[in-house]
Amino acid sequence: MADPSGESTDRSDGPNAERSLDPDDWEGVRRIFHEAVDLAIDHLRGQRDGPVWRATPDAVKRQLAAPAPTAAQSLDALVAEFRRDILPYGTGNVHPRFFGWVHGAGNLAGALGEMLAAVMNCNVGGRDHVAVYVERQVVDWCKAMFAFPATSSGLLTSGTSMGTVIALAVARNEKAGADVQRNGAGAAPRPITAYASREVHGANEKAFDLLGLGAAALRRVAVDAHFRIRIDELARQIAADRAQGLAPAIVIASAGTVNTGAIDDLEALASLCRAEGLWLHVDAAFGGLAVLVPEFRARLAAIAQADSVAFDFHKWLQVPYDAGCVLVRDEAAHRRSFSARGEYLAEGTALAGGDPWFCEYGPELSRGFRALKVWFTVKAYGMDRLAAVIAQNCRQARHLGAAIAAVPELELMAPVDLNIVCFRFCAPDLSAAAQDRLATEIVATLQTAGIAAPSTTRIAGRTAIRVCLTNHRTRTEDLDLLVRETVRIGHALAAPRS
Amino acid sequence: MADPSGESTDRSDGPNAERSLDPDDWEGVRRIFHEAVDLAIDHLRGQRDGPVWRATPDAVKRQLAAPAPTAAQSLDALVAEFRRDILPYGTGNVHPRFFGWVHGAGNLAGALGEMLAAVMNCNVGGRDHVAVYVERQVVDWCKAMFAFPATSSGLLTSGTSMGTVIALAVARNEKAGADVQRNGAGAAPRPITAYASREVHGANEKAFDLLGLGAAALRRVAVDAHFRIRIDELARQIAADRAQGLAPAIVIASAGTVNTGAIDDLEALASLCRAEGLWLHVDAAFGGLAVLVPEFRARLAAIAQADSVAFDFHKWLQVPYDAGCVLVRDEAAHRRSFSARGEYLAEGTALAGGDPWFCEYGPELSRGFRALKVWFTVKAYGMDRLAAVIAQNCRQARHLGAAIAAVPELELMAPVDLNIVCFRFCAPDLSAAAQDRLATEIVATLQTAGIAAPSTTRIAGRTAIRVCLTNHRTRTEDLDLLVRETVRIGHALAAPRS
Repeated sequence: MADPSGESTDRSDGPNAERSLDPDDWEGVRRIFHEAVDLAIDHLRGQRDGPVWRATPDAVKRQLAAPAPTAAQSLDALVAEFRRDILPYGTGNVHPRFFGWVHGAGNLAGALGEMLAAVMNCNVGGRDHVAVYVERQVVDWCKAMFAFPATSSGLLTSGTSMGTVIALAVARNEKAGADVQRNGAGAAPRPITAYASREVHGANEKAFDLLGLGAAALRRVAVDAHFRIRIDELARQIAADRAQGLAPAIVIASAGTVNTGAIDDLEALASLCRAEGLWLHVDAAFGGLAVLVPEFRARLAAIAQADSVAFDFHKWLQVPYDAGCVLVRDEAAHRRSFSARGEYLAEGTALAGGDPWFCEYGPELSRGFRALKVWFTVKAYGMDRLAAVIAQNCRQARHLGAAIAAVPELELMAPVDLNIVCFRFCAPDLSAAAQDRLATEIVATLQTAGIAAPSTTRIAGRTAIRVCLTNHRTRTEDLDLLVRETVRIGHALAAPRS
Repeated sequence: MADPSGESTDRSDGPNAERSLDPDDWEGVRRIFHEAVDLAIDHLRGQRDGPVWRATPDAVKRQLAAPAPTAAQSLDALVAEFRRDILPYGTGNVHPRFFGWVHGAGNLAGALGEMLAAVMNCNVGGRDHVAVYVERQVVDWCKAMFAFPATSSGLLTSGTSMGTVIALAVARNEKAGADVQRNGAGAAPRPITAYASREVHGANEKAFDLLGLGAAALRRVAVDAHFRIRIDELARQIAADRAQGLAPAIVIASAGTVNTGAIDDLEALASLCRAEGLWLHVDAAFGGLAVLVPEFRARLAAIAQADSVAFDFHKWLQVPYDAGCVLVRDEAAHRRSFSARGEYLAEGTALAGGDPWFCEYGPELSRGFRALKVWFTVKAYGMDRLAAVIAQNCRQARHLGAAIAAVPELELMAPVDLNIVCFRFCAPDLSAAAQDRLATEIVATLQTAGIAAPSTTRIAGRTAIRVCLTNHRTRTEDLDLLVRETVRIGHALAAPRS
């Protein structure tokens, strides 16, 4: 776009001849689509045989710094470029030995849904068309999953981060004691405060910043040995804030912390919020989905008592990126917070019908048809099989925890309560700082060699190798390989400095 | 998910056998993908022969109210269900005679990119992988398009609504005169005010609400006969607010209003903002893309002087939904507003490298690879051909304006300056209210009959039939048909009540 001439390239019939972007050669485009499908399916089928990650070559980075082309490129050449320069250098999370951060591994049925959504090209911001009904169905499935009332509302989002912004906006507007939507957060008679464990995901603090409440309004409460929020500390902090004339308003519960997979005592938090008149929001980004697995159901059942919950489909439900959801118990409050339709969006009939519109439940006026990839995923596998993946990952985490405990050089750094395993390679001769560096280097070496992709985090001030199992392709043998390679690399890296 | 049993359906090798979501029968899935490709391409190829819109049948709505299945469904059956119940009932914006709201029509190269992105399943929140470089390239193309400096920053978003939230958050944080990120919007020593024309898109007011500044902080300034903000009124309002002890901080310019396509005097606004020390944000949702067309370039060139700009790819660049972008001149300010990486996201090497991460420029931690469909669209057609579609739509709008002016029963309700035509059917015997209802009914009838899909809006207190041309498939003959059918339906509907 450096030098867009803006002149029509149409030469078919004079300078003002009309021309769409549809192909002249439909069969040629059809053939290329078919080739791309084969490329995509072969890519996924061969994942286990390749490295989990490989660095993007400098030559490719240079290629991807070129200005926007003014002229068209053949679709054949474009797919060839994609195959050579892009496809091999992805994030790695489709590989069986990707264990980093919290990434889902995707699935083919979901990708099929995404392709069909792209061709339909629906705008699900509003109006009356089938994509609205598909999204409503997916939202209803989610309400049922968390035993939210049928009268509650929901919205598909890009992920839990945006779901959190939306849920906390509603909480802010309901709890501020003033019309902060019209007059600003400063109009609240007393400053709002909110509470979450020290382990809560950073997206919550970012949401408080974005919403004009200030990140400092979110108090971080101490955790117990299982990294769950301490209810006694929480109650003490709420009382202290009230005594200072502040307005405690919101508690954010973690249903699966990102560091260790800890699940707060949701039942206790729900009771406390009822007693104190606070809004209970549950950050269920990945862990909440374990409600589908019998052994975790009791610990997650109290999500049903929350005022709002946000979670992702693209993590433990394996839907291709990006896709998350927010549910709000009080539909009217949810709609009040976001309903603002302009004159060109007046209620009407025919295509202009379909009230309420999804744009009345979030900040986005235009919205893609991301519900379709969720719909394809859920229907293609069924909830039982998706739940089985979650149960499988938790079994694998316990296996890995036991394997680590059995190796003298390795040390677990947190209880394995869900699907996350934090550990380190112990080199007793090294200082704490050197041990921390060693953990980072082991992880980088595993990644660079393409062997496996765990990530790192900090546990009680020390660097941990962190394995998060939200990957349906992982097998126990992959974890055994990780243990062996970690020990081998740990010895190799530690030797020169001991 | 009503009754998720959560038990593994794996029967292959005992209750704890490991099983991925990958197909056992890869060739069967490959065949179904190929069938779906044919379905999709035939669907687009046949658009002109079908109705622009048809209501979703009640039987389909009932079908789409079913609970989540616990068991798997064959992918064959699922694609058949999609073909029967979903594909025919889309928004309609892929049809040549969709003229409603501001909807792009999509394109096959973009859909191909979206399919490949879904299979790669990258998370572009951060880390070091190729999707990051593709998004950086697309952002760089956008900087070049608007002549933003190479040192500026940008982020792909779901659309202009989110781009606006991000841009105005940065503006808020830079102009507040206090650490509002930490301490809340109320910490500003004087309340921030902002300014935009009465015709500005509602997403801007929603953003002020969301950001805790309050929707009332956005002052709506009067417009001239071309629906452009009155610079004299704006200056007067800024002075009045300053005199009252408020802190004027932000001006939002419209580069293509949603009602009539009006482009504010950007050069004058840039001068005023420089003189007054205000942040200039440009809402360029669709109209900004006309910078690619020579005849509009001069009127849009001053976007280059803005502090931020937000716009969509899914409108006038024809990328499949959803895809937008925000650019911010001051990269450091942009990053300060959103950079908050948790301990599990520590900077590192290998896969954990790639600084800066895109999640440091917006609220989303997980982000899909929406850059790929933009990349495919731009490279497959080239900027010249994409610009030619924009020029073509503007020529068509002028043609339609002239055609309406030539028909006695029809009346233009606003100047045709860009790609939007607002008009009405005049039935002199009817009251103003009855005329307004008639316009709504004509539009509903056109939609219900599947003939065409304009929408309505309000112009100076009266209901207009509104035609927005952001559709590469539209031909002049489609607009001539619209005029004929509007007159025919107008007479038929007006007759009984005259």
